[in-house]
Amino acid sequence: MSSAEVTVRPAPSPGELFLAEIREQPAALRRLLEHEDEFARVAAAARSRGASLVRMVGHGSSDNAASYGVYAFGLLPRWTALRDSITLTVHYGTDLDMTGSTAVALSQSGQTPDVVQYLALARERGAFTVALTNNPESDLATTADALLPLAAGPELAVAATKTYLNQVAALALLAAHAAGEGPRIATGIREAADRLEELIPELEHRVPAVALAFAFVGRMFVIGRGVEFGTAREIALKLLETCRVAAEPLTATDLAHGPVAALDELFPVWTIASHDETLPAVLEAAERVAQAGAALVASGSAADEVRGASHVLAVPRPAHPLLAPLLSVVPGQVFAWALARAKGLDPDAPRGLSKITLAR
Amino acid sequence: MSSAEVTVRPAPSPGELFLAEIREQPAALRRLLEHEDEFARVAAAARSRGASLVRMVGHGSSDNAASYGVYAFGLLPRWTALRDSITLTVHYGTDLDMTGSTAVALSQSGQTPDVVQYLALARERGAFTVALTNNPESDLATTADALLPLAAGPELAVAATKTYLNQVAALALLAAHAAGEGPRIATGIREAADRLEELIPELEHRVPAVALAFAFVGRMFVIGRGVEFGTAREIALKLLETCRVAAEPLTATDLAHGPVAALDELFPVWTIASHDETLPAVLEAAERVAQAGAALVASGSAADEVRGASHVLAVPRPAHPLLAPLLSVVPGQVFAWALARAKGLDPDAPRGLSKITLAR
Repeated sequence: MSSAEVTVRPAPSPGELFLAEIREQPAALRRLLEHEDEFARVAAAARSRGASLVRMVGHGSSDNAASYGVYAFGLLPRWTALRDSITLTVHYGTDLDMTGSTAVALSQSGQTPDVVQYLALARERGAFTVALTNNPESDLATTADALLPLAAGPELAVAATKTYLNQVAALALLAAHAAGEGPRIATGIREAADRLEELIPELEHRVPAVALAFAFVGRMFVIGRGVEFGTAREIALKLLETCRVAAEPLTATDLAHGPVAALDELFPVWTIASHDETLPAVLEAAERVAQAGAALVASGSAADEVRGASHVLAVPRPAHPLLAPLLSVVPGQVFAWALARAKGLDPDAPRGLSKITLAR
Repeated sequence: MSSAEVTVRPAPSPGELFLAEIREQPAALRRLLEHEDEFARVAAAARSRGASLVRMVGHGSSDNAASYGVYAFGLLPRWTALRDSITLTVHYGTDLDMTGSTAVALSQSGQTPDVVQYLALARERGAFTVALTNNPESDLATTADALLPLAAGPELAVAATKTYLNQVAALALLAAHAAGEGPRIATGIREAADRLEELIPELEHRVPAVALAFAFVGRMFVIGRGVEFGTAREIALKLLETCRVAAEPLTATDLAHGPVAALDELFPVWTIASHDETLPAVLEAAERVAQAGAALVASGSAADEVRGASHVLAVPRPAHPLLAPLLSVVPGQVFAWALARAKGLDPDAPRGLSKITLAR
């Protein structure tokens, strides 16, 4: 907009931006779907280059979305996908042969320096390079062979919400097109957006009373497995950055291999239980938590099946189990908003953070 | 041994087994080196099969060692290595094409059910499968195409120490032989064992006074990057399981992308600073920590370069930067032993854990 059109807005109240962007998520998902053709084209290009090893890079929420991508590419086109090491390529300068790879760089701003640098090097080393960014004019976009727009609209709160959700949907859409299942997954994403329209106001109503009980909690685990491990990571990150809770994401199995020993009555656990093949393992982990005397929050579409939960925040079951994370992250986002408010913190501007991170 | 030879030993005092196994690590490393020929043969077999995508699986400490493996295989033979998803193959039953892959399963006991199951499926799907285990008679060993002995000797404490160190050394040795650098890395491992002989008694002497100041700490971050990220994960796991501290491992960059907002005076940070290309990023992260007012423990060979550290636990610089993790994890092990004792906990037998984890 030109300077003549600048409007003066009052300063937002604490958490206003964060909540507005949580609410905007259904619209953001629909905006992403307008770009479906571009996802189809990029998937076709990757296929035609035989670039079926997927290397994903990103930091923070973008890296959490990449955890989801491992399952989207694994379950749909049956491609091996990994969260690649930026350090190996950028800091150590290792000359890996990346032919046969699709490198997908995730960055909301498209300006994260080491992500841009990684993608430039991946391209030199033979990878088909894809930028997934909210800024089509960014360095990242111009560095890549192909651009996929995140189309989430400007994100003003420091803690990501709608850009995370659109990253998850974008990876599902790209993987689906690589598997020839684009239309089915696009329909599923549209349905998820519709479900969110009802779910978000309901959570805004219910969650603050739950969050209040956690006002003096210093540490939590967040348990998810398979497609929901990215969700666990993202909820833990929201709690860390907006609520200053030492929240650590774990798979159901990680928990049993050590961390369960740390639990007690003052160390609650958030569990994401969704209807898929990992549910028995997640329910088993929840039992261990309950035995250790820790308070349990159950979320996900199968939240009602978690025995001994103090708080249940169920979400609808999606059309396709792979799309569960589009719904199951939202109780965590709303909880982080409500808990930050209960603690007198501003989730729009966590201490020591800025929207674009230039850290090495 | 036959029942006639059973000797009756007095029950160990708390932490006695854990400390004995920390002390035994130089000897355990040397036992591993006696098997160097087997590592050379397995590396040659992987090369001859063109199996240069390395899929590593394991839980707990074994998974932490796999984080190190990403760098060992990346930096030496320039092979892409990943911590593969057990869930994708075992729980979701995804039929990934694994030809061109070497699957390395890490399990001290060789009995972890989903690790055994993963390896059997990986073999069916075309991978060259390798078991790295302390038990050559285990299910895992008989499932694999090739066995690599961990040779650490029986580990009696529930929390792993010498088996972790031998896993790290084993991955370095396998990667080195794949790169034609076996003898150089074997010499480096032998030198590290020699350095540990002096380092361990020194740490036993110095660390308890440092640990005492952490008796009421509930949460910590452990920062490491590149080859030291596995070290950060392993130290955090020791603190969780033996000291009941909510310790979360982060890369230097992760910290800046959110978690730094949670820090305060009661939330200390352990930093591993070693002499390699990641050092500037680690020092920059340490500055952020100091600015947030959090107490800082500096360890690693470059610990003296960390400004504003409250406690410095430097270790010798190894012959090859890739071998730094063989030395830098030990201050964390000794700290966990000392802190558990200071808190009246028994690091030999953390609550709710058993030596062999059968959890799904």
